[in-house]
Amino acid sequence: MKVGVIGLGSMGLGAAVSAVRAGLDVMGIDLNPEARSRFSDAGGQSSNQLTDLCGADVVMVFVVNAQQASDVLQPVLIESLAPDACVVNCVTLAPNKASALADRVEKYGRLYLDAPVSGGAVRAMQGEMSVMAAGVPAAFERAQPVLDAVAGKVFELGDRPGPGSRMKTVNQLLAGVHIAAAAEAMALAAQMDMDMHQVLDVIKDCAGTSWMFENRGPHIAEGDYRPRSMVDIFVKDLGIVSEATDCLDSLPMTTTALELFSKASAQGMGKMDDSAVALLLARRAGCQLPGDPEGQS
Amino acid sequence: MKVGVIGLGSMGLGAAVSAVRAGLDVMGIDLNPEARSRFSDAGGQSSNQLTDLCGADVVMVFVVNAQQASDVLQPVLIESLAPDACVVNCVTLAPNKASALADRVEKYGRLYLDAPVSGGAVRAMQGEMSVMAAGVPAAFERAQPVLDAVAGKVFELGDRPGPGSRMKTVNQLLAGVHIAAAAEAMALAAQMDMDMHQVLDVIKDCAGTSWMFENRGPHIAEGDYRPRSMVDIFVKDLGIVSEATDCLDSLPMTTTALELFSKASAQGMGKMDDSAVALLLARRAGCQLPGDPEGQS
Repeated sequence: MKVGVIGLGSMGLGAAVSAVRAGLDVMGIDLNPEARSRFSDAGGQSSNQLTDLCGADVVMVFVVNAQQASDVLQPVLIESLAPDACVVNCVTLAPNKASALADRVEKYGRLYLDAPVSGGAVRAMQGEMSVMAAGVPAAFERAQPVLDAVAGKVFELGDRPGPGSRMKTVNQLLAGVHIAAAAEAMALAAQMDMDMHQVLDVIKDCAGTSWMFENRGPHIAEGDYRPRSMVDIFVKDLGIVSEATDCLDSLPMTTTALELFSKASAQGMGKMDDSAVALLLARRAGCQLPGDPEGQS
Repeated sequence: MKVGVIGLGSMGLGAAVSAVRAGLDVMGIDLNPEARSRFSDAGGQSSNQLTDLCGADVVMVFVVNAQQASDVLQPVLIESLAPDACVVNCVTLAPNKASALADRVEKYGRLYLDAPVSGGAVRAMQGEMSVMAAGVPAAFERAQPVLDAVAGKVFELGDRPGPGSRMKTVNQLLAGVHIAAAAEAMALAAQMDMDMHQVLDVIKDCAGTSWMFENRGPHIAEGDYRPRSMVDIFVKDLGIVSEATDCLDSLPMTTTALELFSKASAQGMGKMDDSAVALLLARRAGCQLPGDPEGQS
């Protein structure tokens, strides 16, 4: 089985490496030579040309946003795939955009799965990501060997595109708000002169814990803001959440978190790790967190 | 060893029952006859008179707020305890108030632990709560048999009162924001016509999960707002969080969540389960959640 992975960021790289490990024939596509060489180092073949996906049976898409997904899923690409190929779209996008891309892929006779993922880079690299998928049974069947290789759990949410993206929208609401909460909690702990590593150790055993607190908290305690996932990703994703309802009044937490990520981005932190919003909150209180590049001023 | 437990709410009852199970001689104090009979049904002795704590070796305090803690910890009570007794104050209160109560207890020659707890009613009932404790070594030593009975983990955070309450403040920031986030996520899922039980099932395996999402989410999916912990508790606790810094700008998520709990309380939902803020958010969007008492109008 010939597999393509478009986009070798943290989740795409994890999926591509997991597919190689499962013995599949994988071609990874990325415009960024560093991303390609990370995949090559892990034993994969890579290219910057979508034409190298010619004849692929399954193509997973891990680009950044709906626009990029639309750009790569052009008719010329779709028609170059195997006649019964399945496109597995793992991009976080608004539910209505998932439907539009599905229509395009199906128009050219290929199968489509609306299949956003979650679980973080570590689980992705272990082939244990969670996949929130929807599509026709034939699409699940075609993609099965790849899903088996990359996913710890595949939730089958329906037979038309949309439910996968809706579930991812709910997940991103929680994820974004929880990152902002973790940042705020750690910034408050610093204001109260607490030992930040002790805070991590205690809270993970208490009712205040979250997946994001346990994952991003250590970045803040260590002052390590190298981007595992960037501030700008949540500017985008909480924007998608905000568009999922006509009633923004029903999303006060999302709105506040989006404002925080947006302000951080406007202050030049867009390409930093999303936990860097803690720096912005601590600075407001005149408190310096570890690793603050504006420190000692 | 004679143990007193003042306040038989969800956490206090769990602690009292766990202490009985460990073979300790426990007297539970509560003004509410229903709370007392729940403890009697579980094999405990109870009373509505603080004088029944005369001669106690360890007294755990589980009342609702700092004012009640100050009211019960009067000199007359403190002096009635065993000469080397330890007061274990498990109430969530501002760090500076923990110090004031410690000073009072120590003035009358007894030991004091600043010991807020977390982990929820289920773990409390199993004797597995987490305790964030600070106090002199003699206080830890005196309270040890009781802590062993009620706690899964005891974090020893310092030898003066304050660090326990500071840690609890950080925990409540996260807990309150996560309840609001869970409510907002479930209300959005309902707006998108999603199956709410499926949302719970999928998200718990994704990066959007939190202790509170997994604990409170089912209340919302089932429309069951009987108070396991009330909206008004988080009006109080997020108030304590807000007072922990002079810079409210560093607490945007807390501020938004506090506003939400306060509005719910103002609309008559103060005694409902804290997850009932989901009803308020869904109503704003004209969407009816299961179990909404204002439904079908």
